[in-house]
Amino acid sequence: MQAAEIDEYFPVVDIDSSALEAARMLAEHSLPGIVVVTADGQLYAVLPASEVVRFIVPSYVQDDPLLAGVLAESMADRAAETLGGKTLRELLPQHQLTLSVANADDTIIEVAAMMGRLRSPLIAVMKQGRLHGVITASRLLAMALKCGLTEQASTAVVTGLKTEWASL
Amino acid sequence: MQAAEIDEYFPVVDIDSSALEAARMLAEHSLPGIVVVTADGQLYAVLPASEVVRFIVPSYVQDDPLLAGVLAESMADRAAETLGGKTLRELLPQHQLTLSVANADDTIIEVAAMMGRLRSPLIAVMKQGRLHGVITASRLLAMALKCGLTEQASTAVVTGLKTEWASL
Repeated sequence: MQAAEIDEYFPVVDIDSSALEAARMLAEHSLPGIVVVTADGQLYAVLPASEVVRFIVPSYVQDDPLLAGVLAESMADRAAETLGGKTLRELLPQHQLTLSVANADDTIIEVAAMMGRLRSPLIAVMKQGRLHGVITASRLLAMALKCGLTEQASTAVVTGLKTEWASL
Repeated sequence: MQAAEIDEYFPVVDIDSSALEAARMLAEHSLPGIVVVTADGQLYAVLPASEVVRFIVPSYVQDDPLLAGVLAESMADRAAETLGGKTLRELLPQHQLTLSVANADDTIIEVAAMMGRLRSPLIAVMKQGRLHGVITASRLLAMALKCGLTEQASTAVVTGLKTEWASL
């Protein structure tokens, strides 16, 4: 099972679109992250949700996390205002861009190892230089369990676990 | 707005439960991670989905990520079999346990800064030594946008963006 066989469609956002819109899209659909592309469709960044959350953290707090603790609650509550009118392009250079990108022919274990190493819940899959799809952590687990357990399922019948495993 | 005001109920899994069940739960419900507790209800670990994915990565590949690339595809496809019969307790010591834990009175910015720093899409909130709830990245963004934009919303009417913002 190769990356290009298990990746899926995933919404992408243009780098010149509003950061507020991107954050809202993530929040409304509980996405594990966002995929940012340039105007000509080239992949620019794969941002885990935890990275998008940093959009609302003032840059001086990002530079010195201890400052978060002394920020007044009233200021903290208004932090999202910093997003108003900003595009992703304006915000992204302040953020670390981990390139969570796999090749179409990478195995499920290569993708899993990359996810763990980069602590990224989503990996973009490239095929012939273009974005082919995205593999989320839940998609990867679902495919791994479905695939790897075919053999165990038959064992499970013997050990009386059939009902439990049959739900896969 | 403090952490305890925005945290939510989140399913927890017992440390002695099957790792397979935990992985399946995450996959089926597209959870951003899992919260592991001990038999007496104490918080043991907060695992981002990307960390749960590592359950299916053989330990020798975790020790040397380059090995993932040379693992035969047939072996990669059967990697999930390693989960069979293992409990979370057996698997967790092999994994790094970042303590993504906030205090009940932490501000939304403190939680956001912690999420970004730990690259964790979920943070457990403790109150008086007990698990009070969990804040996911999408929940945090939703609350930050709702809260911080009250003031901007009135400006938005003027700039003709009322319809768009009203959906918040």
